[in-house]
Amino acid sequence: MKRRDAMRLAIGAVAVGGAGYFTIAEKLKPNYTANNTPQKLTYKPTPDDWKYHTLDPKKSAEIAYQEYSNGSCMYATFKAIITQLAEQYGQPYASYPIHMMKYGHGGIAGFGSTCGTVNGAAALFGLFINDKKLRDKLVTELFRWYEQTPFPIHQPKQPKLEANMPTSVAQSVLCHASLTNWTKASGEKAHDKVRKERCRRLSADVAYKATEMLNALFKGEFVATHTDSQVVGSCMACHGSEGKLDNTSGKMNCSSCHSESLAHKAFAGPHYKIME
Amino acid sequence: MKRRDAMRLAIGAVAVGGAGYFTIAEKLKPNYTANNTPQKLTYKPTPDDWKYHTLDPKKSAEIAYQEYSNGSCMYATFKAIITQLAEQYGQPYASYPIHMMKYGHGGIAGFGSTCGTVNGAAALFGLFINDKKLRDKLVTELFRWYEQTPFPIHQPKQPKLEANMPTSVAQSVLCHASLTNWTKASGEKAHDKVRKERCRRLSADVAYKATEMLNALFKGEFVATHTDSQVVGSCMACHGSEGKLDNTSGKMNCSSCHSESLAHKAFAGPHYKIME
Repeated sequence: MKRRDAMRLAIGAVAVGGAGYFTIAEKLKPNYTANNTPQKLTYKPTPDDWKYHTLDPKKSAEIAYQEYSNGSCMYATFKAIITQLAEQYGQPYASYPIHMMKYGHGGIAGFGSTCGTVNGAAALFGLFINDKKLRDKLVTELFRWYEQTPFPIHQPKQPKLEANMPTSVAQSVLCHASLTNWTKASGEKAHDKVRKERCRRLSADVAYKATEMLNALFKGEFVATHTDSQVVGSCMACHGSEGKLDNTSGKMNCSSCHSESLAHKAFAGPHYKIME
Repeated sequence: MKRRDAMRLAIGAVAVGGAGYFTIAEKLKPNYTANNTPQKLTYKPTPDDWKYHTLDPKKSAEIAYQEYSNGSCMYATFKAIITQLAEQYGQPYASYPIHMMKYGHGGIAGFGSTCGTVNGAAALFGLFINDKKLRDKLVTELFRWYEQTPFPIHQPKQPKLEANMPTSVAQSVLCHASLTNWTKASGEKAHDKVRKERCRRLSADVAYKATEMLNALFKGEFVATHTDSQVVGSCMACHGSEGKLDNTSGKMNCSSCHSESLAHKAFAGPHYKIME
């Protein structure tokens, strides 16, 4: 942190809550990842749940890759798993109105919010896991993995587009941010064929990962390995439920949009008005 | 725009694509809202769709308000409409596994991404409208309305929490941003009872709006009234499909996160490196 920014933060801290800079500095070092110690998670389905059966992640990836052109990312990811269950076990999977999942393309109707691949996978977790705490753990693991992993990984057997596919780390579960980071890393345009091929392969990656996670969970072997981002802990020490400000909630990687010093300038909150 | 920022933009424009400042300035005035001229939209359902029947928006709002405590925002919004259809028309609505929608609470498993109310309403549009262009128009209208409207509106018959409920304009469809703007406007904490009551009433508002929109569409009377944000047009003139950069895609209100000058500093893209 630059000296000027540190001064600003200190002044802001005093002004906002009467807390000194050192109080906040102490808060910036909480043992935030303590609850992320790897542990095996198990789940006994409730009567409400739709039963999950072990599937082949490779097959999920290939179906998602194929189905992408029929309804984009969320549809492809969701369908990859439901279709296999419908083929192998019939109802109720066969009656699921999968077409509805087309709404999630491009971060929901092209709006650029949550990436459809992870929205679709989270919806699948919702279908098979009617336990808030456990479902949240699986979604968190998937979302952190998405934020931190270089994509795309999938190598299609028969590529729709032959491409020396560049990879990037999305750093965000938001469609438009994920996409922009990929254009930066690849030098490709957002509306080119290669970008579509990237999202097609990314759908395969998320379908693979979701299948792998569900397989592990229902075998009693699931372990969350992606810990909370350190920056989330730092920000939430002040802005989260335990913080002096308590003015937001979330687990998204804050730094993909907010930089430590600029965030306080960019948002016209009390910090900004006091610090400028 | 401050003079210094204008200079920076001009320098960046020349450096990035060889375009002068005036080229970009011209691009900032495109007729971006031309395709938003109010017009009645109609839709003839396809065999894939689940049929929609006219419902009472007030009843949707009241159900969403009641159901919030059973599964949070996305669940409440989605259930408000499906439950009424199930009660009045039986199958297939009665078999829909509504419990799955619990995944969307707090911007998907508490992650703070897309607000569950609009994720749920968009999912409903997906269920009833299997036409990409039209579905996207409805989602866009709903999302713009959400970005621009002071919430919450709903006045429950029997409030779960008696509160002189402050309102705020979310400016964003993201849960954590919507929530933070409300804490700024209200002075309330993000993890207090009043905030939960705000989200409960917001679920009712979105269920009401979604019902109203679906009613209108299937009567051939739907008119989109919320135009694209001007700032989106400005940003996309360079960053969108027609722009020199073409490095992102989306319709979210850019300025709720990015300020015109700071955005180019906050993101370590070519602008930033060239302009600093």
